[in-house]
Amino acid sequence: MCTECRLFTDADLESAIATCMGYKAKDLLRFILEHIKDKMVELLLEVRYDIKLNNAFLAEDKHVPMYEQMASKYSVKYIAGGEGYTWNILDYFGRRRDGLGMSLKNYCESWKLNVELHNVRDFDEVPAECVDIISKYLSSSQFKADVQRVADESTLFLTEAFALGGDGKDAWIFDVDDTLLSNVPYYKKINFGYNSSLLNSLEANRTSLEKWMDERKAPAVEHMRDLYHEIRGRGLKIFIISSRKEHLRDATVNNLVKAGYRGWTELILRCDKDGYDGVKKFKAEQRKRLVSKGYRLWGVVGDQWSSLGGHPHARRTFKIPNPMYYVA
Amino acid sequence: MCTECRLFTDADLESAIATCMGYKAKDLLRFILEHIKDKMVELLLEVRYDIKLNNAFLAEDKHVPMYEQMASKYSVKYIAGGEGYTWNILDYFGRRRDGLGMSLKNYCESWKLNVELHNVRDFDEVPAECVDIISKYLSSSQFKADVQRVADESTLFLTEAFALGGDGKDAWIFDVDDTLLSNVPYYKKINFGYNSSLLNSLEANRTSLEKWMDERKAPAVEHMRDLYHEIRGRGLKIFIISSRKEHLRDATVNNLVKAGYRGWTELILRCDKDGYDGVKKFKAEQRKRLVSKGYRLWGVVGDQWSSLGGHPHARRTFKIPNPMYYVA
Repeated sequence: MCTECRLFTDADLESAIATCMGYKAKDLLRFILEHIKDKMVELLLEVRYDIKLNNAFLAEDKHVPMYEQMASKYSVKYIAGGEGYTWNILDYFGRRRDGLGMSLKNYCESWKLNVELHNVRDFDEVPAECVDIISKYLSSSQFKADVQRVADESTLFLTEAFALGGDGKDAWIFDVDDTLLSNVPYYKKINFGYNSSLLNSLEANRTSLEKWMDERKAPAVEHMRDLYHEIRGRGLKIFIISSRKEHLRDATVNNLVKAGYRGWTELILRCDKDGYDGVKKFKAEQRKRLVSKGYRLWGVVGDQWSSLGGHPHARRTFKIPNPMYYVA
Repeated sequence: MCTECRLFTDADLESAIATCMGYKAKDLLRFILEHIKDKMVELLLEVRYDIKLNNAFLAEDKHVPMYEQMASKYSVKYIAGGEGYTWNILDYFGRRRDGLGMSLKNYCESWKLNVELHNVRDFDEVPAECVDIISKYLSSSQFKADVQRVADESTLFLTEAFALGGDGKDAWIFDVDDTLLSNVPYYKKINFGYNSSLLNSLEANRTSLEKWMDERKAPAVEHMRDLYHEIRGRGLKIFIISSRKEHLRDATVNNLVKAGYRGWTELILRCDKDGYDGVKKFKAEQRKRLVSKGYRLWGVVGDQWSSLGGHPHARRTFKIPNPMYYVA
């Protein structure tokens, strides 16, 4: 992640710190060790003994005195937000000093909300400094309550707005990953991609994820199994449309059944030769095919905006929160 | 809000409590005083001395023993969720006892998130028991951080993805209410509709809201003024499309200027004779008109999904959180 640091081999201290401070302590330490030499020993000691390597970010309140000290010694530049979605600690610190403070928690909660608002798009990974907060959220009673509300709203819609045809053409669509089945255990195991040398490429990430899927151990997303059977019990046909590939069909069916799902009408996966782009297009095309066969699409439940967008629409869409990854 | 309580004049204790417990303590108290008589004195005393009238809801942890006591004395029925979005305290309590507990905070945070996910739609008001939590959120550093992120993402999009035509046809759209101008002071003043007898009808609510707009005192939404001038400074034309009506034009211009906005290309309001339905259609039509005049719509910033949906799209949409009200 911190390859940018290497760009600063010949950079001055200020820009090096300003650029790397948002990254992992380990990277910053290495950079400092290599390039800044003895005048930083004081800071180094603090960093070395106060920070856990690999998973710590120098952005807690207790680190503020360190920055104060540093800023008093060197003329530190406060630069704006950094690369893309990178959190820059000196920017943060600069804002604090300007009376425009934002805590790390505020920052990560905002990031999370803005992902759900579809304001943050196309992110490759959870911001490193938010991994802990996001990880805690995914195991929290809040996350359970959030998903329960999705199920409640779906049921409410079924109850209040429905005039079913009763001709076998009423349909409801579910996504698989992090909608019916939870991949949270996998993402936790790999620390959301932040400590595994195996995951240093997108391809390695896919292989590793597919290996997890093939293990067929994903549990049901809480409340979704009840919703699934509630909808099925009302006589709607259930279509499961996933961006998983065909070679995972056995594993997917097996895992779905093991997690308590059954009686769907069709499980739609992607051809093995398909690229990994354009999930939105693939899912919209499959909805189009269902509509052309006469199905009325009442609802879609998914965790990605790409599962819900495009034409034809379902009457209603329901989005499960997912701050772990983004699928375009 | 608690007109339903009156339906239970002849009801038994259990259904009366089950129905009214989610409402304001005042209504419950009045009902109990009128109908339950002396056998409830013990409970009444607790309610009377432990609860603030008008703004308290009997849903905190400290009230649990009261319910325990009540449930042990009377055969209380735990009924499901109540009317639409009504939070039912006995349902809550029942879930707690079943080990499926959800705190009021979890409940309200979920409601808020699901509004932003567009899973909760067409709500008339903030759930009564969440008024305090929502009110606090709107004054919190979290809300400021959330809006700041909207502005940051807009700027990032401008920086990374832009190939401006430079021919005066690049355009950006802003909504007014709770996007450029904040109505939070108004909604706080009327306690989100929960203590004002003036607001007992939708029409009265509109009159009262328009009176506030006419006072021209709405402050700028934090971070939006900077974003506005950032976008304008990059040479984009700014169009302001609002569901406010024409007779509020003077007040709107005046307020916008006072709040620090200037130099827009067109302020588009609705005809006075328009109905209040179909804001989404109105806004999409206005975008269509702009596109037909050759404008390229790069972005729309609004606080309602109805400001962002429909055709033609802008290249990107940015939604500001708004848990106060819903405009279809």
